[in-house]
Amino acid sequence: MEIGFLGLGNMGLPMARNLLKAGHAVTVYNRTPAKAEELHRDGGARVARTPAEAAAPVAVTMLADDAAVEAVVFGENGLLAALPKGAIHVSMSTISVALSRRLASAHAAAGQRYVAAPVFGRPDAAAAGKLFVVAAGAADALATCRPVFDAVGQKTFEPGDDPAAANVVKLSGNFLIAAAIESMGEAFALARKSGIDPRQYLDILTGTLFGAPVYRNYGGMIAEERYAPPGFKLPLGLKDVRLVLAAGDAAGVPMPVASLLHDRFLAGIGRGYGDLDWSALGKIAANDSGL
Amino acid sequence: MEIGFLGLGNMGLPMARNLLKAGHAVTVYNRTPAKAEELHRDGGARVARTPAEAAAPVAVTMLADDAAVEAVVFGENGLLAALPKGAIHVSMSTISVALSRRLASAHAAAGQRYVAAPVFGRPDAAAAGKLFVVAAGAADALATCRPVFDAVGQKTFEPGDDPAAANVVKLSGNFLIAAAIESMGEAFALARKSGIDPRQYLDILTGTLFGAPVYRNYGGMIAEERYAPPGFKLPLGLKDVRLVLAAGDAAGVPMPVASLLHDRFLAGIGRGYGDLDWSALGKIAANDSGL
Amino acid sequence: MEIGFLGLGNMGLPMARNLLKAGHAVTVYNRTPAKAEELHRDGGARVARTPAEAAAPVAVTMLADDAAVEAVVFGENGLLAALPKGAIHVSMSTISVALSRRLASAHAAAGQRYVAAPVFGRPDAAAAGKLFVVAAGAADALATCRPVFDAVGQKTFEPGDDPAAANVVKLSGNFLIAAAIESMGEAFALARKSGIDPRQYLDILTGTLFGAPVYRNYGGMIAEERYAPPGFKLPLGLKDVRLVLAAGDAAGVPMPVASLLHDRFLAGIGRGYGDLDWSALGKIAANDSGL
Amino acid sequence: MEIGFLGLGNMGLPMARNLLKAGHAVTVYNRTPAKAEELHRDGGARVARTPAEAAAPVAVTMLADDAAVEAVVFGENGLLAALPKGAIHVSMSTISVALSRRLASAHAAAGQRYVAAPVFGRPDAAAAGKLFVVAAGAADALATCRPVFDAVGQKTFEPGDDPAAANVVKLSGNFLIAAAIESMGEAFALARKSGIDPRQYLDILTGTLFGAPVYRNYGGMIAEERYAPPGFKLPLGLKDVRLVLAAGDAAGVPMPVASLLHDRFLAGIGRGYGDLDWSALGKIAANDSGL
Repeated sequence: MEIGFLGLGNMGLPMARNLLKAGHAVTVYNRTPAKAEELHRDGGARVARTPAEAAAPVAVTMLADDAAVEAVVFGENGLLAALPKGAIHVSMSTISVALSRRLASAHAAAGQRYVAAPVFGRPDAAAAGKLFVVAAGAADALATCRPVFDAVGQKTFEPGDDPAAANVVKLSGNFLIAAAIESMGEAFALARKSGIDPRQYLDILTGTLFGAPVYRNYGGMIAEERYAPPGFKLPLGLKDVRLVLAAGDAAGVPMPVASLLHDRFLAGIGRGYGDLDWSALGKIAANDSGL
Repeated sequence: MEIGFLGLGNMGLPMARNLLKAGHAVTVYNRTPAKAEELHRDGGARVARTPAEAAAPVAVTMLADDAAVEAVVFGENGLLAALPKGAIHVSMSTISVALSRRLASAHAAAGQRYVAAPVFGRPDAAAAGKLFVVAAGAADALATCRPVFDAVGQKTFEPGDDPAAANVVKLSGNFLIAAAIESMGEAFALARKSGIDPRQYLDILTGTLFGAPVYRNYGGMIAEERYAPPGFKLPLGLKDVRLVLAAGDAAGVPMPVASLLHDRFLAGIGRGYGDLDWSALGKIAANDSGL
Repeated sequence: MEIGFLGLGNMGLPMARNLLKAGHAVTVYNRTPAKAEELHRDGGARVARTPAEAAAPVAVTMLADDAAVEAVVFGENGLLAALPKGAIHVSMSTISVALSRRLASAHAAAGQRYVAAPVFGRPDAAAAGKLFVVAAGAADALATCRPVFDAVGQKTFEPGDDPAAANVVKLSGNFLIAAAIESMGEAFALARKSGIDPRQYLDILTGTLFGAPVYRNYGGMIAEERYAPPGFKLPLGLKDVRLVLAAGDAAGVPMPVASLLHDRFLAGIGRGYGDLDWSALGKIAANDSGL
Repeated sequence: MEIGFLGLGNMGLPMARNLLKAGHAVTVYNRTPAKAEELHRDGGARVARTPAEAAAPVAVTMLADDAAVEAVVFGENGLLAALPKGAIHVSMSTISVALSRRLASAHAAAGQRYVAAPVFGRPDAAAAGKLFVVAAGAADALATCRPVFDAVGQKTFEPGDDPAAANVVKLSGNFLIAAAIESMGEAFALARKSGIDPRQYLDILTGTLFGAPVYRNYGGMIAEERYAPPGFKLPLGLKDVRLVLAAGDAAGVPMPVASLLHDRFLAGIGRGYGDLDWSALGKIAANDSGL
């Protein structure tokens, strides 16, 4: 399959590599070309010098945020103008619901198709082709894209034909992770102030009701106060909680836990934790407890 | 082993039955005697007419709340006056950290021993002997009690020699459950307002990052808006969040998510949901979203 | 003085009328022309059919929200293209800090000047020329605009040369009002549930520490549960708290009370109070208390 | 009038002095006797060595907290046992609604009368006899006490015959003050980060909508970051917000702003601000904003 792939960051690079491994003909674009060259040497990718040059029947974007996606799609030499009629833009970045709706409209107006397919998983899962993909859009477009999803993920969920649904799932999933982190931060502060060994406390939690990886991984970081090096930086957590709050606001859904998270992430930056992992919510809880 | 068992409610009755099955000589006390009589007929329990008559080398209390434990221990014909020196009071109820500390002092002053051993699990787990026990107290006392824990639970965790630590673990565990419920309530409201099928949404959550039973069970109730019959009534959730807030307050630990839960549970009662399951936090979120 | 005045809503109409009374030559623009015609017949205003026709050495905008200001300034036949070099755009609407900054840049780039001058006060204060004006911008521009401020307000505050400062003052002022309303809503619910007559409760509050009009007026509405007809609709309160949260977010300032207000206003809409006064925050507090 | 006065702290001492000045025969009790001796020398007070010795037809308590009042009333040589039938206990301390109800019952059972009469005002207002008194209880008891209230206060409010109503008014009043402080703390942080001079910002607030002393005084402390020496220490704010939350909880009233204040005060102590004025809520807001 001919695939354009735009965005070779921590997530995009291993995803593109997996597409190449699966035998697809991939044209890659990255703002700074070094990584694209690497994929050319290593994996035989064709290198595009502009987003437009990465136009293909299926063009995947995997970028940092709304602004980056807007630049690549609507900007100079952008995808929107370059994609042929009937081509599919597969947006796999974590972007706002509002931008996803705007992309859906713009591509439809241009006779193109649009699929939102954000992913759950960290760079190591991306490297292993073990991401979870949440893909929404027209059924025929989803069918066309399935080889892409199979190459990068272990499982694909399809919540319907409205692309924005996939973004809601992704953002609300990240919200649930952050809520679990914050709750654990408070619980660990209480445990520590009560003289309980945090590692043992974690063992009890994960050995009883909270066996999910989210509790195990982030609980481990909080128990050991191991907030650096960051796997996902605190300001990225702020970004995502902003997006879920915006989605809630637009849909008329008050989300008080998300509001609380927003203020905690902001306070984390104010206190100088901007370079730590987003699990440093646990550090805020500890500090406020005099730990 | 000779065991006194006080409190034959939804949890206590199956627990006492498992102790009898394991071959222990159990004397049971219940405020209303019918259930005690039942255990006498069924299982050969001796029936005590007062708490004092249930005094034994190991006396287990499994009661509804602080007031019930205080009545049975400190009240007329209470355990405290009746227990022999060296006997162990095993408090398995979900009670406040403050009362647990008070019990520890009172029993020590009377030459008795005290173990706090609250449990995780619902009545069905109690019936199956599959509870998780969190037991804290002096090492020798814990060793003596182990056959009790083995008869009622699948696993015992021992967070140390300060009995209050076990209560902190139990209360903070319930807090984490409630926090997960509230967060899911908000997320499901957003999903529903975004046109996503809630059952499919649940499948995605539990199929990716949130496979733990807490998410599966409570998520299912929220997805299906199945808040009755209650497994654990909303006012009991309020009671437990009060206890964790009190523990946090006493330990100097601000717990903003717990504060939010407190206000949501209170509002749930104000809106008439007092007979629903505590997962009806999801109903509050839905109502506030116009669903 | 030659003045363009754009926006003849509840606030703009009496303000424009006061400018006419003060002897200024006013050209008025309104999206729906009926009110402009009225000011022509009544007060001798010149009527503009497009925003551009209202261009003048001093052009005042007094519109509903960011979108309306953007349309009038940046849209077809907009002010930006029509204002002569050196002319001053005086933005008196309650708009976002971000839009105010964008206007400042755009006008500067066009060789024009920009003053932000939002006001405190309701339509009756506007009619009486008793608004409070908060004006920020370059000193010479402010000096030129003073006759405008004197005609519409009882007092002008000038927090500096950065126009956005005036918007921050306005938005944070509205936030403080909303915070006082919410706090009173909670306090009145407690008073009522404690058997205290709410009118007497209000007398005590305003007779001791809370004599300010904000407490008197909104307290009166809450005490009497008089939420209709609305003076300032609940969704407008939501709009303004969104703007203050956006300002806080951009400035790195967590505002937990504002976050709480945001969720309460949203919930108010979800519960069907969208046509009530924003003091209906008191109705939410009452309902959640079972009143 | 013969008056017993128990508690000669920052508030009680000037209040007792004013009673002496008004010509009443006052017997004073204080746990540490030095201040009582002072009032004996200065003002002719009779000195009681135990609470019982201060029993009189009207006995006023003005103590630090629930524990102090309980000790003086229910403890050894306490007021309850010593007061003659028909005597009135006037509780002017800031105590819990629950304790006030318990005092009402206990005094009624002993054939005595009980009036709750907490006050608004700081030590300087107490010295000037300018307190506001909120007095509730049986009409005849209130009538008897009026000379006491007139001697210490500028005005007395009487919200009814249920003594607890007076405590609700006092506690909710302090809650409203704390809510105004917190809101201002957030608003000032935003103003400062937006480059606005905080003193000028305060002038605008108090010159427009927020002329009440609460805004002027606490706003001034926040604007100048003048949190020491404390007028009312942060842990006392925590104490009072705990009491209002307890009152709300018992009455079924969720108070989310009070919950937020509780967590902020706790965090203030955790961050080491326990010796600062409770307006140091503004310091928390500033720190979380990176100021």
